[in-house]
Amino acid sequence: MNAADASPSPAVAPTPPLPIYLDNGGTTALDPEVHAGLCARLALPLGNPNAAHGAGRAAREMLETARSDLATLLGGKPEEVVFTSGGTESITLALLGCTPVRAGRVALSAVEHSATRTAAERLAAQGMVVDVVPVTPTGRVTPEALAATLRPDTRIVSLMLAQNEIGTISDLASLIPVARRLSPRARIVVDAVQGFTKVPVRLAALGADCVAITAHKLHGPVGIGALWTRVPLTPLFKGGGQERGLRGGTQPAVLAWAFAEAARRAFADVDASARMAALRNRLIEEVRCHLPDATLTGEPPGPTRLPNNAHFCIPGLPSEPLINALAAAGVAASAGAACSTGKARISPTLQALGRRAEDGAFVRLTVGRFTTEACVVEGAARLAACVEPLRRAYAGR
Amino acid sequence: MNAADASPSPAVAPTPPLPIYLDNGGTTALDPEVHAGLCARLALPLGNPNAAHGAGRAAREMLETARSDLATLLGGKPEEVVFTSGGTESITLALLGCTPVRAGRVALSAVEHSATRTAAERLAAQGMVVDVVPVTPTGRVTPEALAATLRPDTRIVSLMLAQNEIGTISDLASLIPVARRLSPRARIVVDAVQGFTKVPVRLAALGADCVAITAHKLHGPVGIGALWTRVPLTPLFKGGGQERGLRGGTQPAVLAWAFAEAARRAFADVDASARMAALRNRLIEEVRCHLPDATLTGEPPGPTRLPNNAHFCIPGLPSEPLINALAAAGVAASAGAACSTGKARISPTLQALGRRAEDGAFVRLTVGRFTTEACVVEGAARLAACVEPLRRAYAGR
Repeated sequence: MNAADASPSPAVAPTPPLPIYLDNGGTTALDPEVHAGLCARLALPLGNPNAAHGAGRAAREMLETARSDLATLLGGKPEEVVFTSGGTESITLALLGCTPVRAGRVALSAVEHSATRTAAERLAAQGMVVDVVPVTPTGRVTPEALAATLRPDTRIVSLMLAQNEIGTISDLASLIPVARRLSPRARIVVDAVQGFTKVPVRLAALGADCVAITAHKLHGPVGIGALWTRVPLTPLFKGGGQERGLRGGTQPAVLAWAFAEAARRAFADVDASARMAALRNRLIEEVRCHLPDATLTGEPPGPTRLPNNAHFCIPGLPSEPLINALAAAGVAASAGAACSTGKARISPTLQALGRRAEDGAFVRLTVGRFTTEACVVEGAARLAACVEPLRRAYAGR
Repeated sequence: MNAADASPSPAVAPTPPLPIYLDNGGTTALDPEVHAGLCARLALPLGNPNAAHGAGRAAREMLETARSDLATLLGGKPEEVVFTSGGTESITLALLGCTPVRAGRVALSAVEHSATRTAAERLAAQGMVVDVVPVTPTGRVTPEALAATLRPDTRIVSLMLAQNEIGTISDLASLIPVARRLSPRARIVVDAVQGFTKVPVRLAALGADCVAITAHKLHGPVGIGALWTRVPLTPLFKGGGQERGLRGGTQPAVLAWAFAEAARRAFADVDASARMAALRNRLIEEVRCHLPDATLTGEPPGPTRLPNNAHFCIPGLPSEPLINALAAAGVAASAGAACSTGKARISPTLQALGRRAEDGAFVRLTVGRFTTEACVVEGAARLAACVEPLRRAYAGR
């Protein structure tokens, strides 16, 4: 009998649960076709798109085709599309790029993304007054609330096409004319990061001045975004004057291609919204079946809610332990935006809705174009299995 | 006899010349190993690196490993590395991030990249005085010239590890102590975009405060860069507080991996500098053989010049037609930085060296780690073949 035989038989490692990805609001997996095209293009002998030679021209043509394709999908012109590193940079460029405005007011809704909120803080530090437009308990900005906030000296108005945590879709067709009428000198900025390709609207035709979008929320790569703008802007960094002087730095032509292609494929997948909505509705049904006291935060399923978004309040337990338990159970979910995880007991968005941490656990479950029905059914079952022991543990605290 | 037979026989399309890529200073092809690893990782089910779940953790681990690997290569600490979209953003973050400094002086060399020049223009608009340090005719900043420029109220000093057009390597070990002594309150920023991995130096040990680097100059992907910093900075865009509050936006974990891996492989390729220098020297020899009156701009080959850089002045013809003729002949070369192509008859760098457009055509030829000897020999031959007819065309003008 040797030493190895004498040791206790090793415990069989538990098989990790199959991953259930329900955080497509945080980021999405690459569309397999975009992945294939991206890898093929990354192997091409492309030059700097600003160079005069053939390899540079090839990169430039790829970049400009992507710009033109995105412009078409937005309903705008190619020269109105500025490539950036992503949504945060696009939003910041739109808001801070309004300088030399250093006086007057900036109005933003109470449920804006942290990118918008932190840019507004910067504007406040530069001397602007920030006005916050209150929202309804489902996260809507009403024309009345907007009208009550706007002033003639409001110079920037920032609104969301769709709210990132609870998926509430803004009625921009009603809101933008209100802003134009009451604040005729204002620049109107739309954060379309979550809504682009999911909300059936031609963004450039809404009447806004700037629209921010990004690739990684729509099965494109992380690291590329764009700002559609029809107004002059001061660049955040000018560098060598790329992007018509609005954004410096060598443009990642292949990422731009992948962005445009992912967006094109999302639009071409004409029943994607209906498919995601059906999956999301099935998810809501399953969650309610397992957890009858769970309530949906935000707007009811329908045209005023992103088709891929479900967001629950589950009473009797706090958020963070639930998200962690879900993670341990192989379910990718979010307590809010990924960007605000772990920083507060409850996100600024939920606070703006009048929700309190005491209401229970808040959990965002977001499907994507490649999510399956089995995935949402299993996700709901695991969610219920995580909730019960936590409720017992927190009962009476 | 049918109509097709009646038409003139179609001209045989000329075979396009095999591409000769000698613009590695503009951008580089992806290292094939990095390409393979990048494509494999782009297919992984990675989440948002700021999310709490398993997919998020996987992305975060990839991102943090990349940060740690880059920190090791820089000789610094992981928490000192901030990921950005590239060199221009990194340089701008370092310079504009020194705010709330709005008074005092900023000193930069006369041959800085447009990223640095345009950031300094922004600082000037904010009230700072910009002092330009003159350079020698080979593009060197001497300790004496730096000392004559610096003042006690100089708050920012910006220098290059290696000049992007002519490849002159700065003696930062001599210059930085001068800056520390004469401007003790200054932040010292180093643009190492062209020099990183090519100049044998531990960048974090040089005594600077901030060092800007990028991936696409060292056979990594376009769209990812970094700033090493050991001083507090104001972010250009804060967003959700990613990158320790210094740079907002979802980090592209896979691009960060590719950046670190490309840099690691460049350092591991220990004879790369000698190999590139030998190719570059062969290129110089061939060009001089074909064009005896061509002169090398900048420092002689050796430790004060980037191993991959050759930059010629060829009398008797202007730059732009030569670059275009080279492009038509399949040779990727540059008249200067890609970023400044076509904007002036001669780049600010060449002007700072005292060169004039009348001196002749300026052409930068830059090799990479994967350039072959056949490529440089053929490139020199095609260069000579382009020069002769242009000289005849421009003779006597």
